[in-house]
Amino acid sequence: MTELFDVAAIGNAIVDVIAPADEDFISAEGLARGAMTLVDQARGSELYARMAPGVETSGGSAANTVAGLASLGARTAFLGKVANDQLGEVFAHDLRAIGVHFPSLPLQDGPATARCLVNVTPDGQRTMCTYLGASVEFTDADIDPAVIEAAQIVYLEGYLFDAEPARKAFAKAAGLARASGRQIALTLSDGFVVERHRAALLGFISAQVDILFANEAEALALFETEDLAVAVDGLRARTRLSAVTRSEKGSLLIGDGEVASILAWPVEKIVDTTGAGDQYAAGVMYGLAAGRPLEVCGHLGALAAAEVISHYGPRPQVSLRALADREGL
Amino acid sequence: MTELFDVAAIGNAIVDVIAPADEDFISAEGLARGAMTLVDQARGSELYARMAPGVETSGGSAANTVAGLASLGARTAFLGKVANDQLGEVFAHDLRAIGVHFPSLPLQDGPATARCLVNVTPDGQRTMCTYLGASVEFTDADIDPAVIEAAQIVYLEGYLFDAEPARKAFAKAAGLARASGRQIALTLSDGFVVERHRAALLGFISAQVDILFANEAEALALFETEDLAVAVDGLRARTRLSAVTRSEKGSLLIGDGEVASILAWPVEKIVDTTGAGDQYAAGVMYGLAAGRPLEVCGHLGALAAAEVISHYGPRPQVSLRALADREGL
Repeated sequence: MTELFDVAAIGNAIVDVIAPADEDFISAEGLARGAMTLVDQARGSELYARMAPGVETSGGSAANTVAGLASLGARTAFLGKVANDQLGEVFAHDLRAIGVHFPSLPLQDGPATARCLVNVTPDGQRTMCTYLGASVEFTDADIDPAVIEAAQIVYLEGYLFDAEPARKAFAKAAGLARASGRQIALTLSDGFVVERHRAALLGFISAQVDILFANEAEALALFETEDLAVAVDGLRARTRLSAVTRSEKGSLLIGDGEVASILAWPVEKIVDTTGAGDQYAAGVMYGLAAGRPLEVCGHLGALAAAEVISHYGPRPQVSLRALADREGL
Repeated sequence: MTELFDVAAIGNAIVDVIAPADEDFISAEGLARGAMTLVDQARGSELYARMAPGVETSGGSAANTVAGLASLGARTAFLGKVANDQLGEVFAHDLRAIGVHFPSLPLQDGPATARCLVNVTPDGQRTMCTYLGASVEFTDADIDPAVIEAAQIVYLEGYLFDAEPARKAFAKAAGLARASGRQIALTLSDGFVVERHRAALLGFISAQVDILFANEAEALALFETEDLAVAVDGLRARTRLSAVTRSEKGSLLIGDGEVASILAWPVEKIVDTTGAGDQYAAGVMYGLAAGRPLEVCGHLGALAAAEVISHYGPRPQVSLRALADREGL
């Protein structure tokens, strides 16, 4: 089948509510600083009522990555579930406005579009509480074979491991991708996700995943180790390529025969780290889809991450293509 | 009655959708650059579909002013109509989170919460298209006498002159305010509003308004003149105090015996002028309510305006109180 997309992604369709918060607020609310915690609607409403005024902006990890890929000039598709409501309309608009193919039908009856309450502390760290709403109603029936079979890389968001129907959808997508000779990429998403689903994730990675994205904490959690070298060996044994991000320490790209160590791209001031990992994955996959050398892929990831942490919001605010051109990438 | 509020405002309850746009987009869409155009739902949806990805943030001119007043430390109330939907919830949250008393009940059946599509060009100019939705369902029944009678200044938004029921609400509010010895302030809002309702506005100003806010174009339009001195004389004859903003040329505060000429507060880079006039009014009314000299009121307005045009979005992103303290205002 003709390759219509560089990357097709499957993830939670979420609108972010981003508000500034001080450290006392994070403690007083008992939030897990820097992590993503799932909340039900009641707890979400309670927390929202106490948060500062916010801005609403489309989010969702894999959807952010797709937005970054589109900003770099890649051909992209996204599969994920919104509700038939105002925030669902916003989410769909923000993808389609940048040329992302988004064929998923909104949920007609049921919970509202997913919302992620993002409290950003003065150091730029983001603490997230997610009400999954309609996004967990994504099932294998939403996997459009025409999209999966036409994508060079099929990118899956680890957060979806929290929902059983979505995990079935992953299996279906992976099967279709495999049968069409497509590459499968996965992001581990969050340390707590790894804790909750370690065995299932390890099995899925070994059996299906070509390209894995993780931050250092997630990679260590996956192999229950505190030694990064152990995690690196574990990843190398299971994937064709793994990327491990290490915040200001840069990242590692672990291939078959080589490990590329990539410096973090310099940033004047870190405003909001939301989307850093998402944009890193966008840069790396853009490079991979274009057949660029491993180091260049890493630099593209670092550059995209640097752009997004220098402002509020999880998606690029300038053309990453123009930025990459300027940097000769 | 005890004075519970420094300022109680009545205005359209609107959520802004802010997106970057280039000049070609403004021309191709036939938009009135820098102005506010009313659109119906169909035209709004069409335009939105062609806009870039945006951020959603609470707006509405008088509501923005109230947010600025709250940021300065004033006691405030807001009356305006949202729908019982997600964007209405966002609007209400963003006011209540900063301590604004917002007693208006959401509309249960009817149009959605009002949306303003804000296209911001690279020079920072904003071009607005507003779908008024639920906000025009604000009627005199929504005027809470307890709020109006307890406010030192009752602030009315000129945009509401477009809706007949809201104009009746204005009359009711003005009557209550007058009977309680409260001051009535009005902003002209937009040149087109003045063109559409010149006679009604002039009548209302002469009969009821103590404090008037206008930008230069609106003041000139009100008196059908191109001579600012003519407009200044016209305003002086009709109001106790008028403020005329002149963008980078600063502003004039026209009192009974004196005219204070206020310099614009210096800004490093103008990002988005949305809310400049709203925040200017906030600063001035804060000063008036606190009994500060006219010049200080003007500087407070200029400072608040400078903060808001240095970032995306129509409301302050830092504490204006802290900013004013730092500047000795």
